[in-house]
Amino acid sequence: MAEKNLDSLFYDTLRDMYYAERHILRTLPKLQKAAVSDELKSAFEHHHTETEGQIQRLEKVFGLIDRKPTSKRCDAIDGILKEGDEHLEEYQDSPAADAAMIASAQAVEHYEITRYGTLRRWAKMLGIPEGADLLTESLEEESRTDELLTRIAETEANARAAALKA
Amino acid sequence: MAEKNLDSLFYDTLRDMYYAERHILRTLPKLQKAAVSDELKSAFEHHHTETEGQIQRLEKVFGLIDRKPTSKRCDAIDGILKEGDEHLEEYQDSPAADAAMIASAQAVEHYEITRYGTLRRWAKMLGIPEGADLLTESLEEESRTDELLTRIAETEANARAAALKA
Repeated sequence: MAEKNLDSLFYDTLRDMYYAERHILRTLPKLQKAAVSDELKSAFEHHHTETEGQIQRLEKVFGLIDRKPTSKRCDAIDGILKEGDEHLEEYQDSPAADAAMIASAQAVEHYEITRYGTLRRWAKMLGIPEGADLLTESLEEESRTDELLTRIAETEANARAAALKA
Repeated sequence: MAEKNLDSLFYDTLRDMYYAERHILRTLPKLQKAAVSDELKSAFEHHHTETEGQIQRLEKVFGLIDRKPTSKRCDAIDGILKEGDEHLEEYQDSPAADAAMIASAQAVEHYEITRYGTLRRWAKMLGIPEGADLLTESLEEESRTDELLTRIAETEANARAAALKA
């Protein structure tokens, strides 16, 4: 695929997301373990299962364009996860541990939201409606996860951080 | 500020955003120059002006917590911008140039949306309502920019890419 056009851009971005989702899958158990509140632990556990499904959907989309699922290194998710790791290390024994983890997880979710939104747009333009539907399912899951993290942040986790601060 | 709590997390994340916004400011003229459609060029130009205002708002928030504005290296935005640079280089002479640039710019916007959302939440919790208001203004600007980019993508830029593809 030497020519650069919307087809190759779609394929490249699909590979980028395949890389991203598989890295996120490996990161989630660490967050689940480190989370202080049970609600946050359970959110990360649930999202681990969802992420497995999202990887399978990406594999189906690869199939729809007659390509084997392969990864392409994604500097964006590498940077986002690296920043999250540093935050986790710095804050994990502090009263703001959950607040820091939620912020990092939401940065991941927003990256996925923008990429799935873009991929869905391109799938529609390229005449791959079944692909667009699969990408919509993942997009909606990511949005719900982001909303859930906001709710958790606004209640238990952050309230505790504020109460204990200084 | 050796102690790790929600105050220090707020301050760290403010410095992270200050770094991010100043890098974005330097990146926007390159995107403006490379954009094919006039609408996209003008969107990047307008967002350059907005970004200057967002930097000033961050400086005001630093003032509200009696801190000098300083940057903290942000691996996330470094990764997102690096990926955007690579896309730009790879696609800039292709019919999908604008589509690629819009996708990269939306990844930046979503990073900012999640960070401003988080900072606003913490500003409220820490009793800095004036800071929360400033952060809300920037958050709303970023959301509007993201929506504008979606509109542009769905009309001119991507339609052209699809028409010219293959």
